Amino acid sequence: METIIKMKKGIKVKNPILIVGLPGIGNVGKLVAEHLRREFKAVRFATIYSPHFPHQVVMLKNGGVRLVNNRFYLIKSKKPSGNDIVLLTGDVQAVSPEGQYEVNSRIVKFFKEDLKGSFIYTIGGYSMGEPTLVKSPRVFANATSKEVVKQFDGDGVVFHESRGLIWGSAGLIIAFAKMSGMGGICLMGETSLLDMDASAAKAVLLTLSKKLQLDIDTTNLDKIINKTAKAIKEIEKQSGMDTMQPFQPGAEGKSGERPSYIR
Amino acid sequence: METIIKMKKGIKVKNPILIVGLPGIGNVGKLVAEHLRREFKAVRFATIYSPHFPHQVVMLKNGGVRLVNNRFYLIKSKKPSGNDIVLLTGDVQAVSPEGQYEVNSRIVKFFKEDLKGSFIYTIGGYSMGEPTLVKSPRVFANATSKEVVKQFDGDGVVFHESRGLIWGSAGLIIAFAKMSGMGGICLMGETSLLDMDASAAKAVLLTLSKKLQLDIDTTNLDKIINKTAKAIKEIEKQSGMDTMQPFQPGAEGKSGERPSYIR
Amino acid sequence: METIIKMKKGIKVKNPILIVGLPGIGNVGKLVAEHLRREFKAVRFATIYSPHFPHQVVMLKNGGVRLVNNRFYLIKSKKPSGNDIVLLTGDVQAVSPEGQYEVNSRIVKFFKEDLKGSFIYTIGGYSMGEPTLVKSPRVFANATSKEVVKQFDGDGVVFHESRGLIWGSAGLIIAFAKMSGMGGICLMGETSLLDMDASAAKAVLLTLSKKLQLDIDTTNLDKIINKTAKAIKEIEKQSGMDTMQPFQPGAEGKSGERPSYIR
Amino acid sequence: METIIKMKKGIKVKNPILIVGLPGIGNVGKLVAEHLRREFKAVRFATIYSPHFPHQVVMLKNGGVRLVNNRFYLIKSKKPSGNDIVLLTGDVQAVSPEGQYEVNSRIVKFFKEDLKGSFIYTIGGYSMGEPTLVKSPRVFANATSKEVVKQFDGDGVVFHESRGLIWGSAGLIIAFAKMSGMGGICLMGETSLLDMDASAAKAVLLTLSKKLQLDIDTTNLDKIINKTAKAIKEIEKQSGMDTMQPFQPGAEGKSGERPSYIR
Repeated sequence: METIIKMKKGIKVKNPILIVGLPGIGNVGKLVAEHLRREFKAVRFATIYSPHFPHQVVMLKNGGVRLVNNRFYLIKSKKPSGNDIVLLTGDVQAVSPEGQYEVNSRIVKFFKEDLKGSFIYTIGGYSMGEPTLVKSPRVFANATSKEVVKQFDGDGVVFHESRGLIWGSAGLIIAFAKMSGMGGICLMGETSLLDMDASAAKAVLLTLSKKLQLDIDTTNLDKIINKTAKAIKEIEKQSGMDTMQPFQPGAEGKSGERPSYIR
Repeated sequence: METIIKMKKGIKVKNPILIVGLPGIGNVGKLVAEHLRREFKAVRFATIYSPHFPHQVVMLKNGGVRLVNNRFYLIKSKKPSGNDIVLLTGDVQAVSPEGQYEVNSRIVKFFKEDLKGSFIYTIGGYSMGEPTLVKSPRVFANATSKEVVKQFDGDGVVFHESRGLIWGSAGLIIAFAKMSGMGGICLMGETSLLDMDASAAKAVLLTLSKKLQLDIDTTNLDKIINKTAKAIKEIEKQSGMDTMQPFQPGAEGKSGERPSYIR
Repeated sequence: METIIKMKKGIKVKNPILIVGLPGIGNVGKLVAEHLRREFKAVRFATIYSPHFPHQVVMLKNGGVRLVNNRFYLIKSKKPSGNDIVLLTGDVQAVSPEGQYEVNSRIVKFFKEDLKGSFIYTIGGYSMGEPTLVKSPRVFANATSKEVVKQFDGDGVVFHESRGLIWGSAGLIIAFAKMSGMGGICLMGETSLLDMDASAAKAVLLTLSKKLQLDIDTTNLDKIINKTAKAIKEIEKQSGMDTMQPFQPGAEGKSGERPSYIR
Repeated sequence: METIIKMKKGIKVKNPILIVGLPGIGNVGKLVAEHLRREFKAVRFATIYSPHFPHQVVMLKNGGVRLVNNRFYLIKSKKPSGNDIVLLTGDVQAVSPEGQYEVNSRIVKFFKEDLKGSFIYTIGGYSMGEPTLVKSPRVFANATSKEVVKQFDGDGVVFHESRGLIWGSAGLIIAFAKMSGMGGICLMGETSLLDMDASAAKAVLLTLSKKLQLDIDTTNLDKIINKTAKAIKEIEKQSGMDTMQPFQPGAEGKSGERPSYIR
């Protein structure tokens, strides 16, 4: 079996931009993509299957099954000349380096050649390695070109401060976009390295809403943020300790890299 | 060397259904398949070899050797218009994700195109993560379509309660069956996560015997069940402890997933 | 780069049998092959390079380098109608399962099709898992067919007692020989799981010398055997303990298999 | 995606020799290559991308991104009949054995066939496993042929003392050079196994400057050497201990090899 992208017939996508939110650090990307999907009732129109994904099948609530995959959703623009938004989210990322190169280059090719797309946002998390809970998460960014940097700089998007390496789809897709002559930006919500960092996701969503002139309701995320804050306070009270510990190098991956990578 | 399926010449298989029982959690699938093989004196007619299996050779009692493999056995139907039963069992499953996708998609293709089969059962184990020995194991299930769910629901088969991921052949084969338009169901015996869970295997066998109108003698399995029960009691007596501990996340695999996967 | 076998030009090999001795448990195979190579001044005539071997280069004493590899050596028969002996030894075995299937199937194909060979010996180590130093190592065996078992049985070669799995070249080469219609036998010296088990190697050499009517001087091996025995005694004396501990399952490999595998 | 080498158009390279300095033990190779690049204002003219590299993207200071890669730089000879120098350095080496064979054989092929090159230096680190800080690092070497050994022997280059295995590019590139009929030498600075061994790098640079008649300013390296020496003294003072411990086998890699490998 090879990596394949199955697309529904009769789908028309107009001047699309792509927003990629896959599982990764703090699940920032996935939270953002799922939020947009629900808010705008995005419709699935294509699916990626790959032997580079884990050999897993999801048990569905309706009693069915499906292979783990990555999924494309469509949000049609309400303006005649506007950009449709394509969301890419999913259960997993490719397991091996070879798989990551294969799947992510295929995503960029599909978006450029099949959907005639021209700009890609990837969403991830980024930690400055500070020991305390991030109260007002910033949005760090790296982009395909100086022009894109100029276009986004200042407006709540922080360039030039993120250092090190981006692991996985959030990085590779932007690199492949650059290599194929497309514009793109990787937006990274500042994360406290929680499992589900709704606070970082909200920061990215606000940035996106400004740039894309979208009206996004973040009530859902606020609930998660409040719950998380309460849970942390409770633990601190019980243990008499500050739960936010300094970053342990290597804790997020076998590579022992600085915490500056995302997926 | 590529993955190959070697089939004996002159074999005729009529309207077959496939039952897949490979090594996995509690070895439920393997116990079921081996039990059926012996009970019905099933005849081997095809063998899968793959470079994705471990690089191992089995030392045979007669002094011979053979590569580890997966094997197809045939149980001819006694009714003129009945379904032949094809069993698939073996020593191992593919080692890597790529190997799993390759081997399991080949199995479905072989069954559909070469054997003209139309329905697949895969057998696995499933644990609800409870700390006590399961006394009356249920049979959980996930299937290829709502029609199959309807067809099996209620009759001793529990849908909608299994959650999470199915790892390996038991899941992938059903997913590939669905993708190729075939019907199929994954039957999962509720397991106490023993190495050889004969109790869970018996529960699945009783379900199969009803559905396929087979007369299956489970005396052999009852012997294993009794032996296991005695062994557990003995250990508890000696240690003064309850041997059944709550499930330790990650204990079954490096992924740290919930115990809801099977192979 | 693909797996390649480079053969010197103008080499004539007559009715060869192949003896395979590669690194593995107790290094029994490698010790046997190296001993035969030196004793009979075997001449290298072909070399295997493979991307499935480790990415290593050997620093030579003369200041040169060479890729790690497997090497074929030739011992010409002194009788006009006799069998030439081809030795296969080397630094390493393939790293991955896929690599093992690839390299070992290539070895059998090369021996059969290019060298027109007809019988293969592979040499390995086998442990019964007993806690004491093996004083008189036996030679266990598994073979390609009942005919080969009959031909070797009794004459110092023990069939039907080895159980479990053979890992790597010693097993796969015999399995591939069988699949391609060739005869072959895997001879396994009973090992105490020492790093270099000269005692097990000597037992296999004596078996080979009988079967192949070779006059083999084992003085060198006797020296290693005596040194090892002295070293063990010394350690026992100093520690006041018996150094030979019962076999620890899993100690030889991540698979946690019984100690019945070899390489 | 396959391994690719992208070369700028209109680049003319004349009778080049290649110097390879990639990340590895003590980062000796990388330090040497980066030093030469800066000193001689070498110009990048070609880039290697490979799915065998880690799935990482570098965040650039200017806000951009790029895939991790290996890069070729050109230092034009000032003499009409002289040799241009091509530097190869980069962020990473290939991750898997297959990847190492693939990428390194491609490098040699590119240098020979596209650049018409004839001689390759690879730079690495080598440790004799001694517990004290190396004060006057030697330069060990292994080469493609006796002729190259003769040409370099004695002149500050130590042959015949390095033992064991060279891992990765520094070794494989020399082995592939030899196999394709090219001359080459692997120069290994004696390292104390520091993360950045500027002292070992300086030793290699002095050797290169003599051989290639280059005038190399090592002031930068001297600064690092002095800083490192001070840091070590400070640690020893505070801890009351000698920080240089005897080599721990296996500490540099999972293989547990002797410390005689480099990358």
